[in-house]
Amino acid sequence: MKLHGYFRSSAAWRLRIALALKGVTHEDAFVHLREGEQREAAHLGRNPQGLVPVLELDDGTMLTQSLAILEWLEETRPRPPILPTDPIERARARAFALAIACEIHPVQNLLVLNRLRRDAGFDDAGVTAWAARTNADGLAACEAMVADRPGRFLFGDRPTVAEICLVPQLGNARRFGVDVSRFPRLLTAEAAAMEMPAFAEAVPAKQPDAE
Amino acid sequence: MKLHGYFRSSAAWRLRIALALKGVTHEDAFVHLREGEQREAAHLGRNPQGLVPVLELDDGTMLTQSLAILEWLEETRPRPPILPTDPIERARARAFALAIACEIHPVQNLLVLNRLRRDAGFDDAGVTAWAARTNADGLAACEAMVADRPGRFLFGDRPTVAEICLVPQLGNARRFGVDVSRFPRLLTAEAAAMEMPAFAEAVPAKQPDAE
Repeated sequence: MKLHGYFRSSAAWRLRIALALKGVTHEDAFVHLREGEQREAAHLGRNPQGLVPVLELDDGTMLTQSLAILEWLEETRPRPPILPTDPIERARARAFALAIACEIHPVQNLLVLNRLRRDAGFDDAGVTAWAARTNADGLAACEAMVADRPGRFLFGDRPTVAEICLVPQLGNARRFGVDVSRFPRLLTAEAAAMEMPAFAEAVPAKQPDAE
Repeated sequence: MKLHGYFRSSAAWRLRIALALKGVTHEDAFVHLREGEQREAAHLGRNPQGLVPVLELDDGTMLTQSLAILEWLEETRPRPPILPTDPIERARARAFALAIACEIHPVQNLLVLNRLRRDAGFDDAGVTAWAARTNADGLAACEAMVADRPGRFLFGDRPTVAEICLVPQLGNARRFGVDVSRFPRLLTAEAAAMEMPAFAEAVPAKQPDAE
């Protein structure tokens, strides 16, 4: 299979982590978001949403939306698991992942930041402030969701979809200048995850298309 | 169990549909979003994100994030299913739901619209135009994702998470003045769903807190 991504896309970053955790070998292909390649016909044919990541299977099937792909990986390659076993814990881990994937990520994504420039006249500083605020408020809610949870990982003794979404989002938050020291429980989980090669090798700076 | 919602919240609307489809009896409780009750301590105790819906279980467990709750319902009350059986079809139905829940809903939600008023000086017309554009562009991508799919429902012969997310989002789109006739495949699925009482009774106008 082939992962169509971009080094800085935090949604593609989630899949880089998950494919490595599951030991799934794949090719990498690159869609240059800053140059607008996601809006070209070649990529819209893979995903009409014009977004990355897209996971292209060997039969040509195109899977989109990173959280849907994480669930598909879990269903088709269950070991090691990236969801807890207990239904309530699964719901909590998914809710944490969705708190990032719905409430933070799209609101600070390139598409919205470009609309703020065009429709609201935001300059670079205004766009950065919007993105920083989105990350700071959203991660504060995430910290509150897990502040009293024991252990290093958030939902059990191994990383789940929660860390798979958290680590890239903390990367974004730092890029926008957010003081992440306000989120000690999140940082504990990030540190635990980053000890694992699947997380350490997935960071944007280590990707072939990094600038 | 008790569903904490708001008549106009399209995320709560998803759960009203799903609980009815699954035949789960529950109480309803109301969090008045326009009056800011979601930011009061009582609600932040249920959900630090300050969002609805929250599903409160009989033991006091609070489940948040509508898509995580849909997965929990599917795992704990599998009949009738709200996901297809085949893994690829499950991934596609989830991707469609996430295309709404990540890319459309949060970008036109009250939180972002209020920030546009405060930080970008948008007036009522500006806010409505932003929300309409978000719905129009997002639903156009959704239409492209499913345009060639056979049948009335989107992913098989019964409604799934796809229709559960689609029907409330089409409601939002109309409220913001979007011409939804551009999305014929989506409207076919909506019409099929609205023949079912679980969908027909979940509309905002039929809720006890409707204004």
